[in-house]
Amino acid sequence: MKRRQFLGAASAGLAAGALARPAIAQSMPEIKWRLTSSFPKSLDTIFGAAEVFAKAVSEASDGKFQIQVFSAGEIVPGLQALDAVQNGTVEMCHTAPYYYVGKDPTFAFATAVPFGLNARQQNAWFYHGGGMDLLNAFFAKYNAFALPGGNTGCQMGGWFRKEIKTTDDLKGLKMRIGGFAGQVLAKLDAVPQQIAGGDIYPALEKGTIDAAEWVGPYDDEKLGFQKVAKYYYYPGWWEGGAALHFMINKAKWDELPAAYKALFHAAAGIANVDMLAKYDAKNPAALKRLVAGGAQLRPFPQPVLDACLEASAELYSETSAKNAEFKKIYDSMMAFRNEEYLWWQVAEYTYDNFMIRARARG
Amino acid sequence: MKRRQFLGAASAGLAAGALARPAIAQSMPEIKWRLTSSFPKSLDTIFGAAEVFAKAVSEASDGKFQIQVFSAGEIVPGLQALDAVQNGTVEMCHTAPYYYVGKDPTFAFATAVPFGLNARQQNAWFYHGGGMDLLNAFFAKYNAFALPGGNTGCQMGGWFRKEIKTTDDLKGLKMRIGGFAGQVLAKLDAVPQQIAGGDIYPALEKGTIDAAEWVGPYDDEKLGFQKVAKYYYYPGWWEGGAALHFMINKAKWDELPAAYKALFHAAAGIANVDMLAKYDAKNPAALKRLVAGGAQLRPFPQPVLDACLEASAELYSETSAKNAEFKKIYDSMMAFRNEEYLWWQVAEYTYDNFMIRARARG
Repeated sequence: MKRRQFLGAASAGLAAGALARPAIAQSMPEIKWRLTSSFPKSLDTIFGAAEVFAKAVSEASDGKFQIQVFSAGEIVPGLQALDAVQNGTVEMCHTAPYYYVGKDPTFAFATAVPFGLNARQQNAWFYHGGGMDLLNAFFAKYNAFALPGGNTGCQMGGWFRKEIKTTDDLKGLKMRIGGFAGQVLAKLDAVPQQIAGGDIYPALEKGTIDAAEWVGPYDDEKLGFQKVAKYYYYPGWWEGGAALHFMINKAKWDELPAAYKALFHAAAGIANVDMLAKYDAKNPAALKRLVAGGAQLRPFPQPVLDACLEASAELYSETSAKNAEFKKIYDSMMAFRNEEYLWWQVAEYTYDNFMIRARARG
Repeated sequence: MKRRQFLGAASAGLAAGALARPAIAQSMPEIKWRLTSSFPKSLDTIFGAAEVFAKAVSEASDGKFQIQVFSAGEIVPGLQALDAVQNGTVEMCHTAPYYYVGKDPTFAFATAVPFGLNARQQNAWFYHGGGMDLLNAFFAKYNAFALPGGNTGCQMGGWFRKEIKTTDDLKGLKMRIGGFAGQVLAKLDAVPQQIAGGDIYPALEKGTIDAAEWVGPYDDEKLGFQKVAKYYYYPGWWEGGAALHFMINKAKWDELPAAYKALFHAAAGIANVDMLAKYDAKNPAALKRLVAGGAQLRPFPQPVLDACLEASAELYSETSAKNAEFKKIYDSMMAFRNEEYLWWQVAEYTYDNFMIRARARG
């Protein structure tokens, strides 16, 4: 049989098969997927965003599209969620892409980078500043397509056994802090440590480490850090608005019918806005309980923040020189950031400033 | 026939009817609705949120649920959108509920009140602070069920022909400003004016009014106010984060199948986060163009804001004394606000503060 005939026959067979399937099966077929989260169930706000997403997809498809959500470790460890998506072990994950800066520092822009965007600005860049287009072009190399899926808001700077009064106090400081921010601190002679969430408390208690950052009041409270490292610093300048993403195996994404792609966009949208709203609603009471329980709130001194800003600029410059993709996305995001804060200082910041001062006066 | 027999027969008939209908028609039937927006197409960010919603619903239902979006005036005037929903002229609308404070001032809490919540806090209260439950119990009296559907972020304080240096400058000031905020300004002897968007420019030009508030840089620029009232004040203390809602005729909502209800929640979620992101992305460049075109940015003086805060407190107190439903929702929202700003001043505000100062230093 000649190639031409073979192709013709194959096409005919395909067409007949396609026609034989009822229309409904093509547009909204029954599908079961597995989603691996990078987070434990105990982080109910972050883990919960994957549940909000899966529930929306299931209910809005009248039960046709079922996504089973697994917590970190049930299928693969939390930090291997992207790998599991990339190699097809699962169809999708819910993760913080900056966990994968070891593969390429460019991943950091999808979550948060030192002195980057705040939570609203992050969404503005993702949805209307070209951010997701740039990031998805990059993620395609890892067989993945991403949709923004939550934000923690600005995180805290973490728990310290001793006060940080000058940049000298950072020298030799053993701090549990991940990825990109750890590299910035290393430039100031701190010693970043990689420690899993559950191991932080004993390490702080024994003095194996001097400081640790986690998330913010609502999550930090669960781990009880105020008992072993009472100075609670702010702001977490490396996470002005840390974003989560739903990352989907690209081949699986591409073959989804258009209706399901639209449903994923909408379901990720409600998960995105709902997760930030939940943190914003839960953090105030947790902060009050932490302070009542002995936490001492401390702002990082201005010269310390300035030194960290300078070290970050150095790291960005070095990384951009070595990595063209990093540079391209860095340039987009930082130009966006500078425009954003030009506007932010006018209405938003002035409003918050007045409200905070009015509240303090009672 | 005895009542018992009659009921038995009716139940049997109902069951047979239910079985006869194909399952698909019950769960995701073909539906066509009309949505009336309170906004003109020229406000592409606000009007666009209704289009984002309708497109998500249509695409994710594989075209089964079509919602046609009409701009203000096509079916009913913009300020009668809720009335059209209430009396069943249309199935739903996209509106700013504070347009209806003439019916009951309680409507204001769904959009924005003077010295209320910022945009993120508004979502936190709606989704996780009991806000939507309280509001929907209130909206039920108007045959409506609402889903949050967008936010403008903190608005600007508007355009003034003369500078406002003290509260005395508010005396006799004829300002185009709506509803609740107008009542606050009236307490300071200003004269609030109700003028439709398209009529503001000539009124300012002729000096019929002295000042006018609209939205923020992106929308204000389209109307060209900087040419006739160059002082551009901030912040819009009456709209720290003005929220839009999709309001649905309650009987129509109640009869929707569960799948469509879930789809509405998700589609409103993406519309909500997308609209704020679009404003945040568009406002910075518009602000730069306005300033280049002659707008003079001015913060309201602190004593003026203090006087407005005091007048607002008076108005809240008077309204609460007369309106139990207003008081109930006011108490919920203001307690939430006070907790929110306790937390906000720690990480979020300090981060923004540092970023703004670092930017200014270059």
